[in-house]
Amino acid sequence: MKLGTVAHEGVEKPVAVIDADTLLDLRAAGLDIRDMVQLVDMGDAGLEAVRDALADPQFGATIGMEDVQMRCPIRPVQYRDCLVFEEHLKNCFVAMEKVTGRAHEIPSVWYDQPIYYKGNRMSFIGHGQDVRWPRYAEFLDLELELAIIVGKGGADISAADAPGHIWGYTILNDMTARDAQMVEMAGQLGPAKGKDFDTGNILGPWIVTADEFEHPVALDMEVRVNGDRWGGGNSRQMQHSFADIIAHISASETFYPGEVIGSGTVGTGCGLELGKRLEPGDEFELEIEGIGVLKNRIVR
Amino acid sequence: MKLGTVAHEGVEKPVAVIDADTLLDLRAAGLDIRDMVQLVDMGDAGLEAVRDALADPQFGATIGMEDVQMRCPIRPVQYRDCLVFEEHLKNCFVAMEKVTGRAHEIPSVWYDQPIYYKGNRMSFIGHGQDVRWPRYAEFLDLELELAIIVGKGGADISAADAPGHIWGYTILNDMTARDAQMVEMAGQLGPAKGKDFDTGNILGPWIVTADEFEHPVALDMEVRVNGDRWGGGNSRQMQHSFADIIAHISASETFYPGEVIGSGTVGTGCGLELGKRLEPGDEFELEIEGIGVLKNRIVR
Repeated sequence: MKLGTVAHEGVEKPVAVIDADTLLDLRAAGLDIRDMVQLVDMGDAGLEAVRDALADPQFGATIGMEDVQMRCPIRPVQYRDCLVFEEHLKNCFVAMEKVTGRAHEIPSVWYDQPIYYKGNRMSFIGHGQDVRWPRYAEFLDLELELAIIVGKGGADISAADAPGHIWGYTILNDMTARDAQMVEMAGQLGPAKGKDFDTGNILGPWIVTADEFEHPVALDMEVRVNGDRWGGGNSRQMQHSFADIIAHISASETFYPGEVIGSGTVGTGCGLELGKRLEPGDEFELEIEGIGVLKNRIVR
Repeated sequence: MKLGTVAHEGVEKPVAVIDADTLLDLRAAGLDIRDMVQLVDMGDAGLEAVRDALADPQFGATIGMEDVQMRCPIRPVQYRDCLVFEEHLKNCFVAMEKVTGRAHEIPSVWYDQPIYYKGNRMSFIGHGQDVRWPRYAEFLDLELELAIIVGKGGADISAADAPGHIWGYTILNDMTARDAQMVEMAGQLGPAKGKDFDTGNILGPWIVTADEFEHPVALDMEVRVNGDRWGGGNSRQMQHSFADIIAHISASETFYPGEVIGSGTVGTGCGLELGKRLEPGDEFELEIEGIGVLKNRIVR
């Protein structure tokens, strides 16, 4: 199933996709949910109810795609982002060496565990919404990532059990102000204003429920800017799978339904690696096989 | 005013302090709030309602301190932690040099801007609740910090306007698994499992509303373990004030009511600086002038 959130007649509504032209308004279909987090929180019973409603969609509960604007499919309860594509890191280090004059080597910890940081959960937008250029930055970049939505919560989840905790998959564009990031990361606390600005995180267009993919996922990923292919890869290139990521993070730590975890950027999935940077007005399409195309524009 | 959250008769309740022995149950006093975030969200009107209720507390709305257990006063909408005490950083670098054999120097960015990371907003506990030793760590430490709760939201807040966005102050204990932190920070994304574990963040005992302190705050801070003084300082030693911190973070980024920002550890406010580490069963008291004493125990 494909699930999402749309603006329709001035109201944000959680929906399911019936076909390319038609959505099911989940609340109108009888689900007592405020938002997507609450559907996640309902677990299998929630997905079962959506499945039943999709099997026999009532006339009054459908919405035409032409009448909605897409919104971020879910506001993350918490948002973490990993960095598990080796090619991305290698390419970034080459690019950074040109700036800093210092050689950077992948630290051994990167191979031992899925390193991650926590991002701003409140700055997300969805498909089709404009990214606003932050006023303190000049070098804007995008990052093509695969993200999961955590379903069933829990702590000390084994890698074997972890796939059962994945509720769905979506596309993540982790917009980055490279100039701010490069300055602040010398402070050793990770990215801050380099990632934290309104409209700086994008999810969508849809969440595809986990039952539609094998684990570990092996999905083609591609990024295009103004119609030109920049780069891409496949999620099978992840050094640490989402199961290993969940096992690592959940050690002595509880996951809650509705948390979101990004994979990190796929190799060649950002401008820094390619010697490219965004310009105001650029339109970018992030495509992942089986999920769709996440398209946005940046305005200054 | 002092505000907090307690467990009473099996229910979590937002309360205000009447005196050392007596609390006001804010919901029983007529405030239509689910939790402390919702009170923050009400802005001045909410504080005015609490003030009115405190001026004439109804008999049925009071609770005896002996009948409650303290809880985290607020679940942060988002949680950031800074690092603005120079003495803490210098002492940590000396301690780390003994381990790594490499000299560490404070990077210039630290003086230019309040660097920060985002922490786990879901792992907070309150005064008197036990910290659970994470299973993957041996070197546990505490950190004595001052924290603010953001009241009025907004973006691009100037340093001059920023004090008006501070709703209240509380004590923060940012528990840290030093061994995990030291390993993962070589990955350059900042602290992760070094800080992220259930019960690893502590706030309390009370939130003191911002009107009770001058800005910038100059409050004595002290940490004691099993009754022995470890260290402490004064919040006037912050290199960047909370006003500067709010101005920095809010650049092109919206703050929401109920976000929490920590100052970072006061100099000599943690064991790493002092060559000390926690043992199972240790009891620690973090005291900040005008706020109170935040006391917890660690169990393994």
